[in-house]
Amino acid sequence: MMAPQKRILVTGASGFLGRHALAPLLRRGFEVHAVSSKPINGLGPAQAQAQVHWHQADLLQAGQAQAVMESVRPTHALHLAWYAEHGKFWKSPLNLDWVCATLSLLKAFGEAGGKRFVGAGSCAEYAWSGQDRYDENDPLRPGTLYGAAKASAFLSGAAYARTANLEFAWGRVFHLFGPHEAPGRIIPALIRAHLGNEKLDCSQGTQLRDFLPASAIADAFADICDSGGSGGSEKGGGGDSGVQGAVNIGSGEAVTLRALSEMIAVKIGQKADIRFGAFQDTGPAKLLPAVRRLHQEVGWRPPISLDAGLAEAIEWWRTQGMRP
Amino acid sequence: MMAPQKRILVTGASGFLGRHALAPLLRRGFEVHAVSSKPINGLGPAQAQAQVHWHQADLLQAGQAQAVMESVRPTHALHLAWYAEHGKFWKSPLNLDWVCATLSLLKAFGEAGGKRFVGAGSCAEYAWSGQDRYDENDPLRPGTLYGAAKASAFLSGAAYARTANLEFAWGRVFHLFGPHEAPGRIIPALIRAHLGNEKLDCSQGTQLRDFLPASAIADAFADICDSGGSGGSEKGGGGDSGVQGAVNIGSGEAVTLRALSEMIAVKIGQKADIRFGAFQDTGPAKLLPAVRRLHQEVGWRPPISLDAGLAEAIEWWRTQGMRP
Repeated sequence: MMAPQKRILVTGASGFLGRHALAPLLRRGFEVHAVSSKPINGLGPAQAQAQVHWHQADLLQAGQAQAVMESVRPTHALHLAWYAEHGKFWKSPLNLDWVCATLSLLKAFGEAGGKRFVGAGSCAEYAWSGQDRYDENDPLRPGTLYGAAKASAFLSGAAYARTANLEFAWGRVFHLFGPHEAPGRIIPALIRAHLGNEKLDCSQGTQLRDFLPASAIADAFADICDSGGSGGSEKGGGGDSGVQGAVNIGSGEAVTLRALSEMIAVKIGQKADIRFGAFQDTGPAKLLPAVRRLHQEVGWRPPISLDAGLAEAIEWWRTQGMRP
Repeated sequence: MMAPQKRILVTGASGFLGRHALAPLLRRGFEVHAVSSKPINGLGPAQAQAQVHWHQADLLQAGQAQAVMESVRPTHALHLAWYAEHGKFWKSPLNLDWVCATLSLLKAFGEAGGKRFVGAGSCAEYAWSGQDRYDENDPLRPGTLYGAAKASAFLSGAAYARTANLEFAWGRVFHLFGPHEAPGRIIPALIRAHLGNEKLDCSQGTQLRDFLPASAIADAFADICDSGGSGGSEKGGGGDSGVQGAVNIGSGEAVTLRALSEMIAVKIGQKADIRFGAFQDTGPAKLLPAVRRLHQEVGWRPPISLDAGLAEAIEWWRTQGMRP
């Protein structure tokens, strides 16, 4: 029997996370349609791979989500697009526009015959109350505009999907890193400091976090998209409905920023002067996901270790001209 | 010293709740601007009172919120507009449009120099978990699209307001009734059955609810708008910032539907055959607000008893041709 066709539309497909999602989706048997707001001929070779169908659309412009959904008519959607500029995304009013763009996209997806919609949420939706690990059912008490906007898109999106008979899943991203990351974020800052043997002022460094390479998170999203998928998938069930609702994305491991810095220094073979405690981090001491849903219900495990992910990121910064 | 001018824009001003909000706002010294999507010359005499400035705008149309905000430049906003058609509002996709319209309105309000924004939330934002009373800090776990959309507007609205230095309050409406109510809702159905001596199939009737007349709820909203208000207000402080965040709106009293039916029958002097238990209500056994914030922080108390509110509603149905 022929597997039913799985056609997925990926938004934010040229972004930090999205660029890594295309290959894992192709491997799971999806026909992949990628949306970017950037001109398609401006995309690098990794993104322009022949098997991916590219569409240019600005989801913040009225009508563009509808147009691309009607033209592609996907069975699945992976919605990764959002405003994410380092240092600005927490408080930007663009977060409000992305709530509306997400809800418009979901509605257009349903109206164009879609079945399963997966969006990208965030650990910033939770309360940051200092508890050990956040479970998907813990209260949503976002302390930031970014977290509130993500929680809003989740609540309204999930409720709309129930009324419209769509499957809806929401992968809550905790901490990620990798090539192409903004240089001011913590892991690039540590890598660049150790590579350049520069001094770096840091927060206390004792905070526990669950870091995954962006490529691993994108792989988890591909599994969430394919959850309940047909025989065309690698893990395929029999076309049952997939895991729905919020799913935390994490390795299940916890690491302090100090330990991360050590791992990076050991790999590089050179240790910079990292001044932990130079300022106070505003985040909680622990910000860790409970990963039972992802690891057991979705059946995902990290395809790459933290160590190997760090090696990749270091290598990428070396190619950018950073040398020890 | 002259009190600083308080100019308020009221949305949904010709609606079930909004029509009652204008007089209490005028009494508190506001210059009142009322927005309705309906043609202004179609409004009845109660709405067309000379002191209120009417504006026609459809807040679901792009740009109309901005235009009316720029033209009025209010210091305060009371946002009551939402899709509310009886029997349809719980699941309507229009709830998504109202999330976006609310966020656009708030943004336009801030950009036009506004200071204090008050919106209408709902008990449907809470979990309906069967607890005794819902406190404003209880988790938001809406079970319906309407509740999810209201919770989304609250979360994103409150977070945006913090970044934009606006005051933001959100009155969570529990149960309301009054003249002009849809005939199929519970209190009109009971009044009409008793007036007409008709049989009526009802749910179990033991559910505990906190009912207020729409005019009382509108009065509470006027107090929330005026919280922290200047000397121009009845209760005026000295221009301090007002109560912010979610504020449950209720009398603090609880009544079963059976007791309500008895009160109505006694007032009418005629008792219809109300068949309690004919079907099962899907709501929780108790759905009651904790009212400490409203009664103590805002300082509001119901200006009219449940009994007097019921008498008003019965009288209104009599004028509609319903006679015992």
